[in-house]
Amino acid sequence: MALALALGRRGQGVAWPNPAVGCVIVRNGRIIGRGSTAPGGRPHAETVALEQAGALADGATAYVTLEPCSHHGRTPPCAEALVRAGISRVVAPIEDSNPRVSGQGFAMLRGAGIEVVTGVGCRAALRDHTGFLMRIEQGRPMVTLKLASSFDGRIATRSGESRWITGPEARRLVHGLRANHDAVLVGAGTARADDPSLTVRDLGISRQPVRVVASRHLDLPLIGDLARSAAEVPLWLCHGSGVDPERTRAWEGLGARLISCTVTGGQIDTADMLRRLGDAGLTRVLCEGGGALAASLLAADLVDELVGFTAGLTIGGDGRAMIGAMGITQLAQAARFDLSETRAVGGDVMHRWLRREG
Amino acid sequence: MALALALGRRGQGVAWPNPAVGCVIVRNGRIIGRGSTAPGGRPHAETVALEQAGALADGATAYVTLEPCSHHGRTPPCAEALVRAGISRVVAPIEDSNPRVSGQGFAMLRGAGIEVVTGVGCRAALRDHTGFLMRIEQGRPMVTLKLASSFDGRIATRSGESRWITGPEARRLVHGLRANHDAVLVGAGTARADDPSLTVRDLGISRQPVRVVASRHLDLPLIGDLARSAAEVPLWLCHGSGVDPERTRAWEGLGARLISCTVTGGQIDTADMLRRLGDAGLTRVLCEGGGALAASLLAADLVDELVGFTAGLTIGGDGRAMIGAMGITQLAQAARFDLSETRAVGGDVMHRWLRREG
Repeated sequence: MALALALGRRGQGVAWPNPAVGCVIVRNGRIIGRGSTAPGGRPHAETVALEQAGALADGATAYVTLEPCSHHGRTPPCAEALVRAGISRVVAPIEDSNPRVSGQGFAMLRGAGIEVVTGVGCRAALRDHTGFLMRIEQGRPMVTLKLASSFDGRIATRSGESRWITGPEARRLVHGLRANHDAVLVGAGTARADDPSLTVRDLGISRQPVRVVASRHLDLPLIGDLARSAAEVPLWLCHGSGVDPERTRAWEGLGARLISCTVTGGQIDTADMLRRLGDAGLTRVLCEGGGALAASLLAADLVDELVGFTAGLTIGGDGRAMIGAMGITQLAQAARFDLSETRAVGGDVMHRWLRREG
Repeated sequence: MALALALGRRGQGVAWPNPAVGCVIVRNGRIIGRGSTAPGGRPHAETVALEQAGALADGATAYVTLEPCSHHGRTPPCAEALVRAGISRVVAPIEDSNPRVSGQGFAMLRGAGIEVVTGVGCRAALRDHTGFLMRIEQGRPMVTLKLASSFDGRIATRSGESRWITGPEARRLVHGLRANHDAVLVGAGTARADDPSLTVRDLGISRQPVRVVASRHLDLPLIGDLARSAAEVPLWLCHGSGVDPERTRAWEGLGARLISCTVTGGQIDTADMLRRLGDAGLTRVLCEGGGALAASLLAADLVDELVGFTAGLTIGGDGRAMIGAMGITQLAQAARFDLSETRAVGGDVMHRWLRREG
């Protein structure tokens, strides 16, 4: 199951809107097939693994990281394919909460006389499939908020200089984070100040994450890396109502996709924006700032994972804050996260935190 | 030597103004004596270890973490004691840069026909004796700056609530840090806002660190924990010129020691303050904030070690900054520190950094 989970994670960031599943087929203690959901979501992991196994699949065990699908979508159901191949036992940690599956995949297998074992590796599977399950259950993608700062929590000097606070190893790890998310999201201020390309470099990935910019007024420079690359790497712009139609047309002309969102309190409503991104198929979104967008997401309790990179320099209180004003006076009002991992990355400290449940 | 170094560290925070030395005496592969510099600096580590070894010291090897002293101070010179005991070999990593010793201890030993080996464990010894050596060489104690903050670098909410951002394990480790420093230093704002007792609790230590408060105008509350405990645990108040003599008298009456410092740009000159603390015998000072004092120390390049505790909560940019304004516009102006250690402490992340040399 650990191998199947690792195979599944390979599809993170590229399998969306489908879940990134892993599958391993074992017969007499020998692995005869392995598969991951392919970029774009097809073929499914089971299909790939069954094809590798061929006739040997007869009587074998299939380890799958999520309940096999039972519905005729763009591909015939995997449960049916497992039955047809003669698989005698299926080990899968969790049900697929997609209402078109939701236990029916397991039922189909059991109905065909296949032994079904669930629960194995269930914690890891829940974590790996969080984005997919959240989109099904809550209608929004999971959100990872990544912020790199100085020792004192500053993401730039008072005049805006931010390159580079962290070292090359940390920045490389950020590219890895981008690669296993479906989309990278930044606020308009960051897009204007840094003109970031937001692409994944040097990791040989098969599908670039979508770049999403939240800009209430769509007042983004039409000249620069972001605009220039809109035709090659997907660029989605979330904006509020009443935007100058010329701007809309200009960005559409450049190849960007425009997503109109509700405005609350003068800002794009982040909950509405995430629902729309979920509707568009995204399951895992990496937000890379700036401070105002980070504060909006945190205030609306929409951050599922925090990733911090802390560098060994001090900028001082007049530098740019990593998270904007949140109006918190009592510590009890502040959202708490539980530490999941910390380690040195190059000369910086990386720390990951998961939203505290309940 | 590792054991001698560990024994030496036991004296940190209590041996000042003397160096916290460790000594192990070995004969035929058996440890026959061990010692640390005692609280207050006497007896020296060598004296303690020689006493334990007794007549067995004849022909034995002594491992000492610093060059044995050669001068008649409040105790007879240790080099002489080692010679008299018949020690045949002394292993010591580094010279004592105190001009009254500075190689003369080694010379005295060699002159008596004792083999002297230096350099072993020299990196660790230099680090352990940093405070003592800085006081001798630069006239000031070493400064460790410890700050505990939220994920986004805030030490309190906008209304000042700060208890508790980090968990009990991190706070316990802070008591350990206090215990191995000679003094704990805070700014007047922190002293007024938190009325911290700044003492070491629950660690059974033999000598409490001196509490130092930097307060330009000496406008500290005469009622509260700090004032109440001034007679029991040393309290030193660093103030500027022109302070109301009534205040001075009141604090002296409570048992505090007053240290008048130069004022630069409307604030206590931190370099001058540290020189005076060095003159008063301190070798290791732990500064625990607040943000204004931290910024002054960093701006004057007087911080030797940074210790951060990061908790998994987000307070937002309107919370209290861990370091005050520093006027930095270019990243090249910011002081850089090298990561020396990071790990989870309870539910928080602890990270230590050493000032980058050159």
